[in-house]
Amino acid sequence: MNIEMLMIGNEILIGKTQDTNSNWMAKRITKYGHRVKRITTIEDEIDVISETLRDILRRNPDIILVSGGLGPTFDDMTLEGIALGLNRKLELNGQALKSIGKAYKRAYERGILKLEGMTKERKKMAYLPQESIPLPNSIGTAPGVRVREQNTTIYIFPGVPMEMKSMFRNVMTPFLKENKGEFIEKGFLFSEIGESQIAPYTSKLEEKYSQLWIKTHPRIGLSVEVEVSITAFNIEKGEELIDKALAELKETIIKLDGKVINRK
Amino acid sequence: MNIEMLMIGNEILIGKTQDTNSNWMAKRITKYGHRVKRITTIEDEIDVISETLRDILRRNPDIILVSGGLGPTFDDMTLEGIALGLNRKLELNGQALKSIGKAYKRAYERGILKLEGMTKERKKMAYLPQESIPLPNSIGTAPGVRVREQNTTIYIFPGVPMEMKSMFRNVMTPFLKENKGEFIEKGFLFSEIGESQIAPYTSKLEEKYSQLWIKTHPRIGLSVEVEVSITAFNIEKGEELIDKALAELKETIIKLDGKVINRK
Repeated sequence: MNIEMLMIGNEILIGKTQDTNSNWMAKRITKYGHRVKRITTIEDEIDVISETLRDILRRNPDIILVSGGLGPTFDDMTLEGIALGLNRKLELNGQALKSIGKAYKRAYERGILKLEGMTKERKKMAYLPQESIPLPNSIGTAPGVRVREQNTTIYIFPGVPMEMKSMFRNVMTPFLKENKGEFIEKGFLFSEIGESQIAPYTSKLEEKYSQLWIKTHPRIGLSVEVEVSITAFNIEKGEELIDKALAELKETIIKLDGKVINRK
Repeated sequence: MNIEMLMIGNEILIGKTQDTNSNWMAKRITKYGHRVKRITTIEDEIDVISETLRDILRRNPDIILVSGGLGPTFDDMTLEGIALGLNRKLELNGQALKSIGKAYKRAYERGILKLEGMTKERKKMAYLPQESIPLPNSIGTAPGVRVREQNTTIYIFPGVPMEMKSMFRNVMTPFLKENKGEFIEKGFLFSEIGESQIAPYTSKLEEKYSQLWIKTHPRIGLSVEVEVSITAFNIEKGEELIDKALAELKETIIKLDGKVINRK
């Protein structure tokens, strides 16, 4: 499946918050054999959110993961922006309202908050784009949202990492696993010769093994890392292919007077 | 100035590498009073790069900061993608070629690399989009690039953080400082009352002080952080405005039986 991420939050754009959510999600999506095609980070602005959503929908991804801007404050406007982008109204969702009420009651009873009842700001979080399904938030108060538009399923998660992770684990992981291909990656380090010197050989290998993805990264201490990866439905065959390519590459490096450093 | 960032690299999209470059740059851009409008992360694919560049140019930012994909390997295709997006050819740049040659010679003389001369892959890094200016890379080998398209200046930096930072400091910082407004931010923590309870008051304050940006973040330990910020050309007046808003907010919190926790 092709997946795009849409991260919403001024605090990321001003550099106050390092976005770690997209990396956390990307790792898991890749692990289950799916592909993150793009990550877009935008500000909390209704028009920017709605227009960016439309741009993403035009590229027709299977899934859009949205994170951030679900809270009770005036600058949390993700749901309004998404609804506008989908040409839908916001509608009070009874199930969402109930779960928000429960979450605040829990917080009040534990002495975390002094105000128990529903306020305009709290109720705001229960207005979802028409035909949405609320996703339970077991940690915070703002429910997540699932909503479909043609062939694309949109998941909207909170921006608070703990809440996002819990919702992702409950909702996304099972879904990603169902359509699972396995992402396999192996590699080694070499030194004494540079990235540019090995480049023509990795190009040839990529032509020969067209399913493989071969990447070199310069590393600290003047060594270079090689990573060979594949998304395979047959794990054994995938690993075999990678091992072949790695063996040929090591041979080349030794011929060029390079030094191969094997990893565990 | 309005700035967009374009981060290029499969390793970010598969979750292997946490992109810290955009956060590092965003902090500095904000500090000098400019605005990051959007961060887009895409894969190393010529067509994706060129189309995304065109999308960004349509939004007419003052600056586009591109990072990643300048190296010698076959999957470094940023310059090709940017050239295509600008409808320009890649042209061998004599100055870039010379600096690449020097960098490899230095590496060879220090015993870092065994191959001294120019190879096809190394030479590739000297082909820049027509009418580009190469930017010196004092740490690595791939030169950066500056190129203009109508009202937008595009800076292309390496993805290796050390090289990006050094180039940003040499090239961007002086330029950002010239057009400098100051970003000021102050805040405090409070507890006993929640984010949703204070939300109507911060909304009203934002209406009253329309230049200010007021944000609340839930924090660990059940407290909430308030941050009030402004981009001001007169620092004294900016701070005065923030202090006023903070004082009013503290008063409100105390009235609501909340507890204000001042920070240093």
